[in-house]
Amino acid sequence: MWQEKDNKLQASFEFKNFSEAFAFMTEVAFLAERLDHHPEWSNVWNKVNFQLCTHSAGNTITQKDRELAAAIDEVFTKYR
Amino acid sequence: MWQEKDNKLQASFEFKNFSEAFAFMTEVAFLAERLDHHPEWSNVWNKVNFQLCTHSAGNTITQKDRELAAAIDEVFTKYR
Amino acid sequence: MWQEKDNKLQASFEFKNFSEAFAFMTEVAFLAERLDHHPEWSNVWNKVNFQLCTHSAGNTITQKDRELAAAIDEVFTKYR
Amino acid sequence: MWQEKDNKLQASFEFKNFSEAFAFMTEVAFLAERLDHHPEWSNVWNKVNFQLCTHSAGNTITQKDRELAAAIDEVFTKYR
Repeated sequence: MWQEKDNKLQASFEFKNFSEAFAFMTEVAFLAERLDHHPEWSNVWNKVNFQLCTHSAGNTITQKDRELAAAIDEVFTKYR
Repeated sequence: MWQEKDNKLQASFEFKNFSEAFAFMTEVAFLAERLDHHPEWSNVWNKVNFQLCTHSAGNTITQKDRELAAAIDEVFTKYR
Repeated sequence: MWQEKDNKLQASFEFKNFSEAFAFMTEVAFLAERLDHHPEWSNVWNKVNFQLCTHSAGNTITQKDRELAAAIDEVFTKYR
Repeated sequence: MWQEKDNKLQASFEFKNFSEAFAFMTEVAFLAERLDHHPEWSNVWNKVNFQLCTHSAGNTITQKDRELAAAIDEVFTKYR
C-alpha cells in the first residue's frame, strides 16, 4: 500500500466516516510522538493521506519512515 | 456487558494500551457530541469505564443512555 | 489571516509543538462535525494548514467555509 | 488547586463546553505518554477530574505525580 514517490513514502487510508478517521489519526499521533518522528499528513472527511520523509536526512526516506509506516499499518489493521 | 447499577448504565472496556484506549475515547467523544448526550466516564491506562444516566430525567436511565451505550458498543467492535 | 487562493479559503497556524497542534486539531474536528462541514487540512509537526471549499457547490468558497474559518479562528484564540 | 486527599493528588478543571474539555484531555494524554505516567481521570461534559498516585509506589503520591500535576497546570493555562 505504501509507495515511494518524489522521495516520500506515501499511502492513503479510507474510513467509514470522519470521526473514525480522526480516531485513527489520534492513535497515529501517539505513535508519532513515541517514535519522535512525525508525519506529513492530510485529511478530508474519511480519507487520511501520508507523505513520510526525514527532514534531518535531506528529505529522503529513511529507516525511521519505514518504522512509522509499519506502525501506522498496524494501527490500521483494526479498521479494515 | 452493560449493567444497571445505582440508576446508572455501567460498563468497562479494556484495550491494548493507553493510546488505543484514548483513540477509542476520541471516537466515543464524537458520537456523544452527535447524540448531544455525554457520558460520565473515567480512564486509567488501558481501561475506560462508563456510568450513563440522564441528568434532565432526575439522573435515571433513559432511552438516550441506551442509545449511547449501543453506539459505544458499535465503536468498540473494532477493538475486540 | 485567511486568504482566497485557487477557489479555496486558506490559512496556516503554528503551535508550540506537535501535541499542542493536535489538541487544536481535535477541537476543530468537533466543530467540523457540529457544522457538518469538514476541512481539507494537513499537518506537519507544529503546523496546521487549511484549504476550505464546498464540494457540493462545485468546489467554490461558500458561506459554510466562512463560518468554519471564523469558528477555527475562535478556537485558535487561546493558542495565541 | 491540587489537593492531597486519600493519598491522591486531586484537582478539577472546568471548560466552556465538552469539545474544549476533550481538546484539553488530548493534550494531557500526550504528556502522560511522554512522562510515561498516566492519570486516573474522569470527565462529565465540561469538567475533568484528576486523581494522581503512583501504583508502583504502593499507591502513594510521588515526584512523578507532582511533575504530571505541574505539566497539567501548564496545559490548562491557555484555557483560563
